[in-house]
Amino acid sequence: MEKNLINNLVKDKDQKYIENNFQFILFGGTGDLAHNKIIPAFYNLAAKNILPPNYNLIATGRRYENQAEYLQALYNSLKAKKETIDDKIWQSLSDKIEYFNLSFTNDDDFIKLKKFLEDKSAAEKPSNRIFYLATAPGFFASLAQKLEKFNLLDVGFSKNKSRLVIEKPFGHDLESAQELNKNLTEIFSEKNIFRIDHYLGKEMIQDIMVIRLTNPIFRAIWNKNQIDNIQIYLNESEGVKDRGKYYDDAGVIKDMFQNHMLQVLSLITMEEPSELTAAEISQKKVAVFKELADNDLSNIDEHIVRGQYDSNIINEQEIKSYRDEDEIPADSETATFLALKLFLNNQRWQGVPIYLKSGKRLKEKEATIAIEFKSNFHNAYQNQQIENNLLLIKIQPDEGVSLRFNTRKPASNNKIIPVNMEFCQSCQQFFNSPENYEVLITDMLNGDKTLFTSWEEVSYSWKFIDKIQQKTTEKSIKLHQYPALSNGPEAAQQLLAADGRKWWD
Amino acid sequence: MEKNLINNLVKDKDQKYIENNFQFILFGGTGDLAHNKIIPAFYNLAAKNILPPNYNLIATGRRYENQAEYLQALYNSLKAKKETIDDKIWQSLSDKIEYFNLSFTNDDDFIKLKKFLEDKSAAEKPSNRIFYLATAPGFFASLAQKLEKFNLLDVGFSKNKSRLVIEKPFGHDLESAQELNKNLTEIFSEKNIFRIDHYLGKEMIQDIMVIRLTNPIFRAIWNKNQIDNIQIYLNESEGVKDRGKYYDDAGVIKDMFQNHMLQVLSLITMEEPSELTAAEISQKKVAVFKELADNDLSNIDEHIVRGQYDSNIINEQEIKSYRDEDEIPADSETATFLALKLFLNNQRWQGVPIYLKSGKRLKEKEATIAIEFKSNFHNAYQNQQIENNLLLIKIQPDEGVSLRFNTRKPASNNKIIPVNMEFCQSCQQFFNSPENYEVLITDMLNGDKTLFTSWEEVSYSWKFIDKIQQKTTEKSIKLHQYPALSNGPEAAQQLLAADGRKWWD
Repeated sequence: MEKNLINNLVKDKDQKYIENNFQFILFGGTGDLAHNKIIPAFYNLAAKNILPPNYNLIATGRRYENQAEYLQALYNSLKAKKETIDDKIWQSLSDKIEYFNLSFTNDDDFIKLKKFLEDKSAAEKPSNRIFYLATAPGFFASLAQKLEKFNLLDVGFSKNKSRLVIEKPFGHDLESAQELNKNLTEIFSEKNIFRIDHYLGKEMIQDIMVIRLTNPIFRAIWNKNQIDNIQIYLNESEGVKDRGKYYDDAGVIKDMFQNHMLQVLSLITMEEPSELTAAEISQKKVAVFKELADNDLSNIDEHIVRGQYDSNIINEQEIKSYRDEDEIPADSETATFLALKLFLNNQRWQGVPIYLKSGKRLKEKEATIAIEFKSNFHNAYQNQQIENNLLLIKIQPDEGVSLRFNTRKPASNNKIIPVNMEFCQSCQQFFNSPENYEVLITDMLNGDKTLFTSWEEVSYSWKFIDKIQQKTTEKSIKLHQYPALSNGPEAAQQLLAADGRKWWD
Repeated sequence: MEKNLINNLVKDKDQKYIENNFQFILFGGTGDLAHNKIIPAFYNLAAKNILPPNYNLIATGRRYENQAEYLQALYNSLKAKKETIDDKIWQSLSDKIEYFNLSFTNDDDFIKLKKFLEDKSAAEKPSNRIFYLATAPGFFASLAQKLEKFNLLDVGFSKNKSRLVIEKPFGHDLESAQELNKNLTEIFSEKNIFRIDHYLGKEMIQDIMVIRLTNPIFRAIWNKNQIDNIQIYLNESEGVKDRGKYYDDAGVIKDMFQNHMLQVLSLITMEEPSELTAAEISQKKVAVFKELADNDLSNIDEHIVRGQYDSNIINEQEIKSYRDEDEIPADSETATFLALKLFLNNQRWQGVPIYLKSGKRLKEKEATIAIEFKSNFHNAYQNQQIENNLLLIKIQPDEGVSLRFNTRKPASNNKIIPVNMEFCQSCQQFFNSPENYEVLITDMLNGDKTLFTSWEEVSYSWKFIDKIQQKTTEKSIKLHQYPALSNGPEAAQQLLAADGRKWWD
């Protein structure tokens, strides 16, 4: 049995491990994402012995003078995130990190980086190579082009196996996404482009398909005959913080719906994949996006609620309105809240309303999928108000599954009351859910694209989002103000109340 | 709103209350059942304000000289059962109890009791009258006859509204049950005979029908298409204690199967009643018993495991064998354990094995219904061993419902693991499950027969049990010895293992 080098733990056969001798070249190595997500994820992977004994983590940037300064900065960021840092683990990781001073606009730096990679690769024979662009999206195309132009793809590793990893946003509409995709696919083939949607790395999101496919009790009732409606709410309590400029361009629709929301929706509603390959799963998701994109949205004005957070006073503290946030124009018409009612007109879901909701500065941070079942009660109980069965898949902050069912109130005269069966994953001590970047880094290094979004998914989701944007403008859909840290606009409650339903958050 | 006389609590509209001015005439008022179940239940009903302001509880017996002695004895028994006794509540109850010295064989006593009832009724105009025979079953018929003979049924209350309540056993086979029933129905009509099966008063047993009928998610899958097998285990850890003589005649088959086990089985497997009347529900249960009784049991030798507990040493304490218990013959062939595999050949359950098990001196006291669902997993997971979904309805000692479902082991490479969603009714502080005799006394006083067994249920269940008894003798079915406080005979494990299944206790 393979032993681990650091603490001799026996490897867990259910665990994914990362192949030895990879090269991970991180552009934007001094940025927030590197400090707050990528390096901490590497630290955790090291702590869990998921990293192999040999690898290179080459981080490029300009902010720091040298390796020592950079490592100190990373250490400080890690310290701010974690209660304790195990020095042995940090040592094992920092030994692998090499800071490479590079400016995106300085061609010489790329030439130097090429030489550096050449030497590294000659010595260490990489098994995998990843170019991770943890940069502003404006640099994606030009960086890819420079990798090609300065022959970084050809040194010591096969170009057609080199992977490119990029963060969202992938374009800001279908046209810009197509343009970006054209630029990237001239250099990297689709199979080597890994588009991150960090939501897909969350444990409960990964569980959706398993819950659907390995539980006959759910599998048998996952359709319009048994399901009354589906709700997905991705509520955030934070404001735009220091990302005002990005956010005011994107709004909730591009920040949350085009990617996370539609991904979750597709996992819940897609047809069952015939096999568990990334390609097959992606095809089934794409079918959902296509259906959405084909929707004519003719009565969208009755099915959409847009909102923007206003100021509020909570515990004698003033919470800023969106328009008062840094970098936000005082007359911004950007929606920070969106509720949407949709239908999928296929055999499985025809007539089942799907309610989507996301917003900033909502009362509580909570991401949950709610599957509400039909009221097919025995009619002998029709004199009582009985609640529908409700399956909740809790994504964050709690992770778990709960099922609301009906029983007798004890000692009562057959009074029916709803109670919950609960499985709390995040409560269980032996379950230590990994951070999503740990999962995504492991998978990209192992070449598993299941948790990354394909170009088809991206393009059809943009097609749908563009259509909503266009209709919103065309029909001058109202922008409701809602108090910061409230439940959002009253109109969003009305959207469901009009159907005799309510949100389950 | 009606106020309560004792502590002015507002009445709960979901609660059952008992009509004012009832007469409850208890034969065997000085026996164990009265001391341990009936009077404590009345105390609890008083504490919960379920009793009306006016009623008579006339307890007959011979053991005590007078009212004061009897009340003291009841108080002592109550004290032994309860941590604290609220004196005000005890006072309110004991004010209503009247001890009536009566010997079953002394006709004069019945004449006196008639006079007593006459005077009572003239003064207090009873709304209901119950004759509760908490006596050895040998007295049921003769006592009923004396009630008639000495005109106790005609004084101050309508004979055809007077109810007779009897405890199990109702006969010891079909013939004796028919004889007893003939005797009783010459005096009381079927609608006024309340046969107690105290299992039916348990909260979770009452919940079975509600769980089936008010939860569309379960209703949709309650059939052979989704259910692989049904298990009911009613495990007892105690031995026969001081009931050796009764038990050696009855054995587990008459003590547990003919009544409790078949009742639970019928509630789980019956067709849905069209309405919630006692008569309609009973008809649906009877249909199950009829099917069982029609079974030819030709291969019962492969489907039955009989056992008798042997001695064992647990924590250096010797546990007696059954044959060493008081009043048990040293060569007794009585089964204290029975496991049975059955089928119901109707449309809903054809091909679904039903495994029943009950025994004394098993490792743990536990009564549970386990519904195991079919392995209709998506075939993409066929390389993994996946557990079937499992719904547990826990009757005692824990009360609740749990559902085992499959999810990903967090951070794993799509490793599927079973986890449980739990609803623990007995854990919830606001749920204070009543003792089953509270429920049964409330219902008999309100004339609700739902939780009492009808003659048809009794007769068909005896028909089935007689057939098993006959086949057991005919085929000389082996009696396995099993160590006291073990899991029972190994053969009972084999019964399921041969089908590729296992017990879930």
